Amino acid sequence: MRHVISALVMNEPGVLARVAGMFSARGFNIDSLVVGRTEKAELSRMTIVVTADDNTLDQVRKQLAKLVEIVAVHDFQSSAYIERDLALLTVTIPSGRRTEVIEVVNLFRAKIVDIAPESLIVELAGTEEKIEAFVELMRPYGIKELARTGVIAMVRGMQPVKETGTKSEGRRPRSLKAATGAALPPS
Amino acid sequence: MRHVISALVMNEPGVLARVAGMFSARGFNIDSLVVGRTEKAELSRMTIVVTADDNTLDQVRKQLAKLVEIVAVHDFQSSAYIERDLALLTVTIPSGRRTEVIEVVNLFRAKIVDIAPESLIVELAGTEEKIEAFVELMRPYGIKELARTGVIAMVRGMQPVKETGTKSEGRRPRSLKAATGAALPPS
Repeated sequence: MRHVISALVMNEPGVLARVAGMFSARGFNIDSLVVGRTEKAELSRMTIVVTADDNTLDQVRKQLAKLVEIVAVHDFQSSAYIERDLALLTVTIPSGRRTEVIEVVNLFRAKIVDIAPESLIVELAGTEEKIEAFVELMRPYGIKELARTGVIAMVRGMQPVKETGTKSEGRRPRSLKAATGAALPPS
Repeated sequence: MRHVISALVMNEPGVLARVAGMFSARGFNIDSLVVGRTEKAELSRMTIVVTADDNTLDQVRKQLAKLVEIVAVHDFQSSAYIERDLALLTVTIPSGRRTEVIEVVNLFRAKIVDIAPESLIVELAGTEEKIEAFVELMRPYGIKELARTGVIAMVRGMQPVKETGTKSEGRRPRSLKAATGAALPPS
């Protein structure tokens, strides 16, 4: 099943190659991988979305946690969390159809960041599902280019009071066992 | 100097480890790395932001282009382009100061995606500079956690007519030599 794994790593050359090697050695299919900065200059956060069976993945998670350069590893499966992906799309606009494209862009609360006579560049942040839905709607017009960041994720506040502007896509903890980071039952 | 490199790669296990290895072998400092999906299911796009001298980087770019799994490599240095980074921040809210935090969030056109009694999760997409400015403004309140995707980029339409909702952060081609992918003069 799909897992979102976050690893807090030290900013040293070679960490990324080592982590990527651990996944590729097992032939895991990485859906997306992000290495970005964190609140501390000396640390980066890797967020990896991977489809794998739970037991194998749990072994990898434990091996990752043993690497010297890795400060912490978290499987979001065990938490209520927010995930966000970012896409930039260059959409070709068939003559006379710009207005209808802009309508869809507005409905998705996407942003137009560049306009040329026969194309638009659109920026959209959201869950993977939201971005995929938007891409499908744009496909008939013609997608010239598409770049996506892949997913970053964050654990929700413990007692969410209210939520604005998003669907509830977080997941509740499945069990106490899951919350302690032990293997989840296979789905 | 800072370069944004984009590589269109085949979706095969091991590609990421190989590319990451080429950078780490030279001790390059990767500022961010993103591997995300593209308009074609069999291809992924890697976007790498790296600070390196132009000649060394050009050698790496040429070696990357020779790898079997790599379909195309582009250095955005040679184009007018849009770049976007995405951040999720958990900000702790000191008692009675939620309104002023929300004001800053609105000024940056950021989105609040989760509210708990003593914290907010904020989503913000923009250039690296915009995100850094926002992070600095949030720091006095208390940043509990910060995750960033790193940069994705897209070449602008050839004749931009108008631009909405963004600063002009694209760069003009520096020279014809740059546009052909040859080494840029050191900055």
